[in-house]
Amino acid sequence: MSAGTTAAVVIVGSEVLSAKVQDENGPFLARRLHELGVELAAIHTVPDRTDAIVEALLLERRRVDWIFTAGGVGPTHDDLTLPAVARALGVPVRRNPELVRVLEVMHARYHGGDSLPDVAFRMADLPEGTELLGDPEFPTLVISRVVMLPGVPSFLRHQFERIAHLLGGAPYHLVSLYFAWGEDLLATPLAAVAAANPGVEVGSYPRFDRADHRVRVTIEGKDATLVQATARAILAAVPPEALVRAEGLDP
Amino acid sequence: MSAGTTAAVVIVGSEVLSAKVQDENGPFLARRLHELGVELAAIHTVPDRTDAIVEALLLERRRVDWIFTAGGVGPTHDDLTLPAVARALGVPVRRNPELVRVLEVMHARYHGGDSLPDVAFRMADLPEGTELLGDPEFPTLVISRVVMLPGVPSFLRHQFERIAHLLGGAPYHLVSLYFAWGEDLLATPLAAVAAANPGVEVGSYPRFDRADHRVRVTIEGKDATLVQATARAILAAVPPEALVRAEGLDP
Repeated sequence: MSAGTTAAVVIVGSEVLSAKVQDENGPFLARRLHELGVELAAIHTVPDRTDAIVEALLLERRRVDWIFTAGGVGPTHDDLTLPAVARALGVPVRRNPELVRVLEVMHARYHGGDSLPDVAFRMADLPEGTELLGDPEFPTLVISRVVMLPGVPSFLRHQFERIAHLLGGAPYHLVSLYFAWGEDLLATPLAAVAAANPGVEVGSYPRFDRADHRVRVTIEGKDATLVQATARAILAAVPPEALVRAEGLDP
Repeated sequence: MSAGTTAAVVIVGSEVLSAKVQDENGPFLARRLHELGVELAAIHTVPDRTDAIVEALLLERRRVDWIFTAGGVGPTHDDLTLPAVARALGVPVRRNPELVRVLEVMHARYHGGDSLPDVAFRMADLPEGTELLGDPEFPTLVISRVVMLPGVPSFLRHQFERIAHLLGGAPYHLVSLYFAWGEDLLATPLAAVAAANPGVEVGSYPRFDRADHRVRVTIEGKDATLVQATARAILAAVPPEALVRAEGLDP
């Protein structure tokens, strides 16, 4: 995978939009993708409706390498992610015999001899061409770099980690500078340095509480030398007394 | 405002996508909009880039009544929400004299006699036609039902609450049914009842831990009678021993 790997996340979550549940999957995926050196371009939280899921998928298919959906893969009427992915990719839905066997084994383990009701096999109606990767007992569903993860956070994490090795990009390097000055006074030097260093992302995050600093400036990118040089350029443009402390700066 | 008021949220947050900060504003707005009876159609978390903000605005302008942006309204180079809203609405950016005065008063209060650096007035370069509503000392910026909120959570909450009275829709009614059965066994009756009651949203949320239930079924809508009737129809379709408890059900 190149250093420029990009991704988008689609949270299928009427329950998040109506505040019944606070989403944990977006923050988890953001953290892990960043650790893996993957640039996360957007998170879309959409309702459990086929048209809304398809729209988000089509929007992101045009521009990112990987899409991760979270939720909507169970057996109930509000589980619509699998047919939505099929529609967005223009492939039919087919019952997958390998996943049927996985569901039967899982069911037998937890429920003994009862046979699995027909409706449960909706979970095995996959976009044609879907691969079952990772843990054979609880496989991760992937088609054309669209990864269809379950909404239950512990399950999502398990299935994500089992395919994380497919994603690796070059790692990010981060320097944080904490300033006693407000953004008013930092804005002009920051704008100049940021404009001169387009390969590095310079962020400015003010706070208005009793912390030891008023602004945290982050300098991040994949070229460690350029990140260090950009941080030095900011320090050179601001009087030394404005700096409270630095993190990640080479000595 | 009609009972059918809808909204979308655009989180302008490179820092959220790169996991430097966990977003609090999306969950807050989801909760408050739901309490106010406003249907939240989507949350888009996008990077601090004009094109990404404009795209999300144009997508949602077509279909929701209100858009709330969060973040990107400060004076630094990565604060791009105000020009992006202007571009999406097809209006020019103009320095707003009323907001200039607010910034001067605020600056004098916190920093005494120092004059405000020019760059700080970028915060007053607003899409032409923006109204300053709510708290005159810390006004909420609104144009054509696009509400441009600050990213600092305490500030966002303050500015949101000052205009919340403009939004009121009819309240939601919610019944929650907690079942000992898994989704496998509930899926068929739930699908039938949900299909017969399109005015009510029926959600099914499994869990796989040691809680007292395996599935929470939520029945929610604006017509309380219909919500109660839908909940009763689900209970009539499932054996009584499957129910652990109910919340919000009329006696």
